[in-house]
Amino acid sequence: MKIAILGGTGDQGFGLALRLAKDNEIIIGSRKKEKAEAAAEKAREILKSKNILAEIKGLENKDAAKEGEIVIISIPYEHILSTIKELKDELKGKIVVSIAVPLATAIGDNPTRLLYPPDGSVAEMIQKVLKDSKVVSAFQNISAKILSDLDSEIECDILVCGDYEDAKKVVIDLINKMGARAIDCGNLEKSRIIEGITALLIAINKKYKIDRAGIKITGI
Amino acid sequence: MKIAILGGTGDQGFGLALRLAKDNEIIIGSRKKEKAEAAAEKAREILKSKNILAEIKGLENKDAAKEGEIVIISIPYEHILSTIKELKDELKGKIVVSIAVPLATAIGDNPTRLLYPPDGSVAEMIQKVLKDSKVVSAFQNISAKILSDLDSEIECDILVCGDYEDAKKVVIDLINKMGARAIDCGNLEKSRIIEGITALLIAINKKYKIDRAGIKITGI
Repeated sequence: MKIAILGGTGDQGFGLALRLAKDNEIIIGSRKKEKAEAAAEKAREILKSKNILAEIKGLENKDAAKEGEIVIISIPYEHILSTIKELKDELKGKIVVSIAVPLATAIGDNPTRLLYPPDGSVAEMIQKVLKDSKVVSAFQNISAKILSDLDSEIECDILVCGDYEDAKKVVIDLINKMGARAIDCGNLEKSRIIEGITALLIAINKKYKIDRAGIKITGI
Repeated sequence: MKIAILGGTGDQGFGLALRLAKDNEIIIGSRKKEKAEAAAEKAREILKSKNILAEIKGLENKDAAKEGEIVIISIPYEHILSTIKELKDELKGKIVVSIAVPLATAIGDNPTRLLYPPDGSVAEMIQKVLKDSKVVSAFQNISAKILSDLDSEIECDILVCGDYEDAKKVVIDLINKMGARAIDCGNLEKSRIIEGITALLIAINKKYKIDRAGIKITGI
């Protein structure tokens, strides 16, 4: 599968690139092609040091969106709307994965606090703009530290939701291949809760002086 | 410790009564004394069958609130305001534990959907009314099925938050004595997220056809 990660130079996107590169062709997208290329080069080196031969390249966001079969939106909350409005055509008919969280850092406040997007969640906002794409919400609650630490097993679950069952299934398969357990939480509206959990995990990280709090569903 | 559970005839409150009765004196509160007494009798019988000698009695909510040192509000969301407004004096200076969730069932909608209380969460609403009490938020995410099943270990964590560190510590100790792990999630505002998680767990229960989905924090 060809996966584009828009904003893939950031911690979360870059960590995902590393974890997904074992089984997929990765395109890291950025506002600047040179930044994307540098991140791709760095990712290839890290993977090479683990004896993983990976196909990763860097492109400008627009070109990355065009080429990806699945497109992950790994852009800070406050920049998402302006970016996706320009990429409607490139994203048409595709699976678009929303991983962002509306943390109050977007307005200079604390990352343990949340903003409340008018549409309820970032994922619902993206779906509203990209009417011809299939939005799946995932990967908000896994720490970038765990993603980047390729030697560590993924102990937490990845919560997934979305209104398109076929698209959700594709993303769940990707997650399972990464060696993580995906939990299907239902329709896209559930992203309101899933995105919120990230602020809670950041609060727990601070309280317990750790850097990789995650969430696991018990009783399943 | 003398713990009153207002609305303790409901599933969640009754389950808590069973689990807390091992180390504490329990007062089950209800709008009707006879209902409270019947629930207390039932709880004593269940515990006796497990060879646990427990002190549990039933009282009307007002009397229960007066007698409890810690008071758990286990009343459906839509009835909380009217109840606590009348109990301000009884609850003054006490630790009040908020366990309710603003599920959309309160307006005849689906339990996997949430209402958004004007104050952000049920716990914050209670704290706003009971200015002279110390509100701690806890126990929203543990299934009543697990609580009532005294033979089963509590595998999930209990998320706790509140603005009073001393009160939070007392509740965390209660939880640890119950044999569960308490996670301190910070200030009372975090209850917005913690309460939301319950709707997510109900959705997961439905999706996976189970009855006791819970949440555990990993990486801690």
